[in-house]
Amino acid sequence: MCRFLLYKGKDSIQLAHLLTRPAHSIINQSFDCRLRIDTRRPINGDGFGVGWYESNPGPDNTPCIFASVTPAWNNQNLARLAEKIRSPLVFAHVRASTSGTLSENNCHPWKYNRLMWMHNGHIQDFNKIKRKLQQSLRDEIFLFVQGNTDSEWAFALFLNQLRDPQAERFDHETLKKAMLKTIEQLNIWAEEAGITEPSLLNFAVTDGCSVVCTRYINSKTEEAASLYFSSGTNFKEYKPGHYRMIKADKREDIVLVASEPLTFEKADWLIIPTNTCFVITPKFNVLLFPIKDQYYNIDRMKKRQSIVPPAVL
Amino acid sequence: MCRFLLYKGKDSIQLAHLLTRPAHSIINQSFDCRLRIDTRRPINGDGFGVGWYESNPGPDNTPCIFASVTPAWNNQNLARLAEKIRSPLVFAHVRASTSGTLSENNCHPWKYNRLMWMHNGHIQDFNKIKRKLQQSLRDEIFLFVQGNTDSEWAFALFLNQLRDPQAERFDHETLKKAMLKTIEQLNIWAEEAGITEPSLLNFAVTDGCSVVCTRYINSKTEEAASLYFSSGTNFKEYKPGHYRMIKADKREDIVLVASEPLTFEKADWLIIPTNTCFVITPKFNVLLFPIKDQYYNIDRMKKRQSIVPPAVL
Amino acid sequence: MCRFLLYKGKDSIQLAHLLTRPAHSIINQSFDCRLRIDTRRPINGDGFGVGWYESNPGPDNTPCIFASVTPAWNNQNLARLAEKIRSPLVFAHVRASTSGTLSENNCHPWKYNRLMWMHNGHIQDFNKIKRKLQQSLRDEIFLFVQGNTDSEWAFALFLNQLRDPQAERFDHETLKKAMLKTIEQLNIWAEEAGITEPSLLNFAVTDGCSVVCTRYINSKTEEAASLYFSSGTNFKEYKPGHYRMIKADKREDIVLVASEPLTFEKADWLIIPTNTCFVITPKFNVLLFPIKDQYYNIDRMKKRQSIVPPAVL
Amino acid sequence: MCRFLLYKGKDSIQLAHLLTRPAHSIINQSFDCRLRIDTRRPINGDGFGVGWYESNPGPDNTPCIFASVTPAWNNQNLARLAEKIRSPLVFAHVRASTSGTLSENNCHPWKYNRLMWMHNGHIQDFNKIKRKLQQSLRDEIFLFVQGNTDSEWAFALFLNQLRDPQAERFDHETLKKAMLKTIEQLNIWAEEAGITEPSLLNFAVTDGCSVVCTRYINSKTEEAASLYFSSGTNFKEYKPGHYRMIKADKREDIVLVASEPLTFEKADWLIIPTNTCFVITPKFNVLLFPIKDQYYNIDRMKKRQSIVPPAVL
Repeated sequence: MCRFLLYKGKDSIQLAHLLTRPAHSIINQSFDCRLRIDTRRPINGDGFGVGWYESNPGPDNTPCIFASVTPAWNNQNLARLAEKIRSPLVFAHVRASTSGTLSENNCHPWKYNRLMWMHNGHIQDFNKIKRKLQQSLRDEIFLFVQGNTDSEWAFALFLNQLRDPQAERFDHETLKKAMLKTIEQLNIWAEEAGITEPSLLNFAVTDGCSVVCTRYINSKTEEAASLYFSSGTNFKEYKPGHYRMIKADKREDIVLVASEPLTFEKADWLIIPTNTCFVITPKFNVLLFPIKDQYYNIDRMKKRQSIVPPAVL
Repeated sequence: MCRFLLYKGKDSIQLAHLLTRPAHSIINQSFDCRLRIDTRRPINGDGFGVGWYESNPGPDNTPCIFASVTPAWNNQNLARLAEKIRSPLVFAHVRASTSGTLSENNCHPWKYNRLMWMHNGHIQDFNKIKRKLQQSLRDEIFLFVQGNTDSEWAFALFLNQLRDPQAERFDHETLKKAMLKTIEQLNIWAEEAGITEPSLLNFAVTDGCSVVCTRYINSKTEEAASLYFSSGTNFKEYKPGHYRMIKADKREDIVLVASEPLTFEKADWLIIPTNTCFVITPKFNVLLFPIKDQYYNIDRMKKRQSIVPPAVL
Repeated sequence: MCRFLLYKGKDSIQLAHLLTRPAHSIINQSFDCRLRIDTRRPINGDGFGVGWYESNPGPDNTPCIFASVTPAWNNQNLARLAEKIRSPLVFAHVRASTSGTLSENNCHPWKYNRLMWMHNGHIQDFNKIKRKLQQSLRDEIFLFVQGNTDSEWAFALFLNQLRDPQAERFDHETLKKAMLKTIEQLNIWAEEAGITEPSLLNFAVTDGCSVVCTRYINSKTEEAASLYFSSGTNFKEYKPGHYRMIKADKREDIVLVASEPLTFEKADWLIIPTNTCFVITPKFNVLLFPIKDQYYNIDRMKKRQSIVPPAVL
Repeated sequence: MCRFLLYKGKDSIQLAHLLTRPAHSIINQSFDCRLRIDTRRPINGDGFGVGWYESNPGPDNTPCIFASVTPAWNNQNLARLAEKIRSPLVFAHVRASTSGTLSENNCHPWKYNRLMWMHNGHIQDFNKIKRKLQQSLRDEIFLFVQGNTDSEWAFALFLNQLRDPQAERFDHETLKKAMLKTIEQLNIWAEEAGITEPSLLNFAVTDGCSVVCTRYINSKTEEAASLYFSSGTNFKEYKPGHYRMIKADKREDIVLVASEPLTFEKADWLIIPTNTCFVITPKFNVLLFPIKDQYYNIDRMKKRQSIVPPAVL
């Protein structure tokens, strides 16, 4: 299973502060991730991707994506670009392949005009629903897919819920509805196919303004893959490799969402409860919606879910 | 457009004699191919693949495939393997991408148990028939495809014509019929979709015993992509980089088929006429069948098609 | 042999206007370069590199370099980055390996703190002078080299001529002197080693402010590898893929130097005469100095050297 | 730090039995190696290499090497070749870079005509002795090096100890002497440079007939990197992924040497004591020689060094 990270800030951040410099950055998570459910393969070395929007875009206001099949921790291009590129909205992903071969086409995130998407988890028995999913798609979306992962096809399914996926901007309500319909549809097909093992559906999508992500499992009892967030006014490096989220006042100028905390400051991170839709509005409001479908379980929600920050490396 | 080459011999050949040593080997063709129809991009630098059967296979008697996205002419692994590996049946392919991104998944040849497939050309407006093709496939074949090229989906369509594509061996008649049905089906869909530009369908398939290939275009007037063959008893290097096909007697111990001649000996190579199915039987009989469908044109067939051997480099 | 290109402008340029969009961009030159001396391998598919300075650098004001061993014409990361990155000073290089294996370490340009370097050509019989060159270097420069090309070692030799190669800025006179001493030293070693074939020494170096390049051959009669420049106030795309250098007034706001013209406008490009040192000062003065050493030939200089713009593709 | 493995057998072994099928194969060690000294980066994902000799070589009797910079655990070419290639003498190596960038040139093993070399460990402060090492080399050996690792330069130093490194065959005494002189020379330079931290020098070399390897550290008190061997008459897969070394009689038909045991059978593996030279003769005699230099420590040798077989995964 993979790791992902997203940043939305009023100010741009240099990618290095997210990707390469933190002692428990997503790149270090790529070879030392401590909260993985699947412990057979404790690494995420099957490629890497980072996507970002420009603070002052030119005529092309779609996100830029840099992806590679060599491990993130030894990619000189990534290391150099991360020192130079600054962005107010970043998605990053390290991959441990569960489905789909090693190929740049299979690296998250993907983009479709203004929209960008990534996934941490997997669609259980995807092969049993792949045909139905493809047949449900409009032509331009069916033909857009280049790789062969469940995650990219889930993006296609999401796009298919939107009336105009090429639009310049979306209401965050619209993105949220499309996200919930995507999950609902995957659940319907899973049931039809008699799939009994659950899927891990931590998705993230953005149009460059709003961000919608989910922490979700189609099970009433099990936990979804981990997902945390942190917000404040400044993400500050107080000593080399060690970061802290500063909260100067009530405002939220920065929101980070990540499969695992990036810092060792326990208080900086809140867990997103299982089966929740997490929204960051263009004005930096952070909204959490329980996903109340057949897998909703008030007791599971109530259980205090403590953060387990990674031990010092 | 791409180049391909295949070798079937009573004896094994060292891959270097096909791939790296001939002055006009397929690797040199990858940056200097003189007979290409499409002259915009005079190189085949978008990956490479070679597949071969063992002369004395172990329990796994499927072909082995080595493929890479870096150009063939500078691939040290290929250069080294070619000096070591010997095989009685070899497929090799250099790619100039027309459809499908740069990815090992998109490198020819592909295999399915005992069967191996490659393609030189392209299916015109493939996006217009992709869905129909996919929907026609049985599940195990639909799910087998890993890449996103027209060529690999054409292989899937071919497999779908066979009652048991996992069989250990096939009659060459069976392979030929499946090949012709594949082309027929592609033509039907092209017509249904109103595609007027022709497709270039030089396909090659083998089960390790028989070889079936086509030189085909769904046009009554235009020429298909070039295809040549050479046969004899010995493929001999008479001076470094220069090869000649020796014909010691009437027997055929070696058959070579290639998009372009590998040698500069005009007399060694015969052109395969447009819209022909070319078969090598397990006993090394070479059979040419005109493909008599709606695109059959006796006049085009009659025209003497002279070989244009590449000029000395 | 390779191709290179450099841009220095008062304003930043989007990399796409140099790298990917012009019909005869350096990427298209990578598979269709018409002015190469060595015609055996008419492609530059052995890797690619682009380096650039930021218009408003942060604490790290060194250039950023993106390099790859897959061919430039099919590199999705390059295509996407080129649409996003803007810079006032760009070096770009496509490689056809003459020495050094296929490796990112061997891709031009290289950087050393603020300095950036690339080379089009080769040092003849480099193996005969490699030891002397290495032994002449100060430790920190000797240890800086990561790859195994003559070009990177020439950069090391250049750095060794500078009193403080880690300096923040250099006088353009200083860079020019170091460049000429580099060539002089290479000539001395070539003579000592009895090397009779000439070297092709088109070098380019910059500190982010000044640019110094050479078109040079250590021969009295032969021509160096081609090198052109173009200057004006605006490098404008007048129709898709077709560019023109606009000269609104006497000022030079943009200077382009390239192995081959990027446009089909004959009048836009001037040839840099063989054995010339070409300097762009921080204030955009363009200076040409004949290199008056033992290979200086006034007659060769006098010959009118007309530009041969590439034919329309 | 890296992992290595070598196999020498009277019969050829299919590479898959060494590389891909064992549950604790070297490929699985690449992401789950339990005996590493350096625990900061618990993976070996920085490239892979395997070299082998043919049982019936043709005119070219040098070893073949396949190497790649993508992680071994997801390399389709490796997986496919390992199912096909059989060899009586195999070196395999997974790399975690300590020195030298990610590049095929930097992947172990390397070959020089008949000789093949790999290294597990590192030369401490290599930069302080690099120049002296290079200056000590004869020209053809100096120029042979393509990469920039301490390990490849150590191979060059080894070659330089041989009167004719291009010879067709070597006495195992000759190889052993050259190996010990290599270590001795590295120690001299380390002392001259005032390097106080020890180097980890587990080297392996072969000419295709004899094998010489070392488990060595230039310290009187510390342990070298782990090294084990196993010998017998048959390396048998008794259930999928689980192997056992069978000892049918006194003969040694197979010798395996590995950084970590490949099987979970404690009794199958013996530790090679620290500071030992381990030799396999052409007739399969296994010889262990303590390296009696200034770092020899009889007490350290006496300490019973038990094998810690990796726990069941």
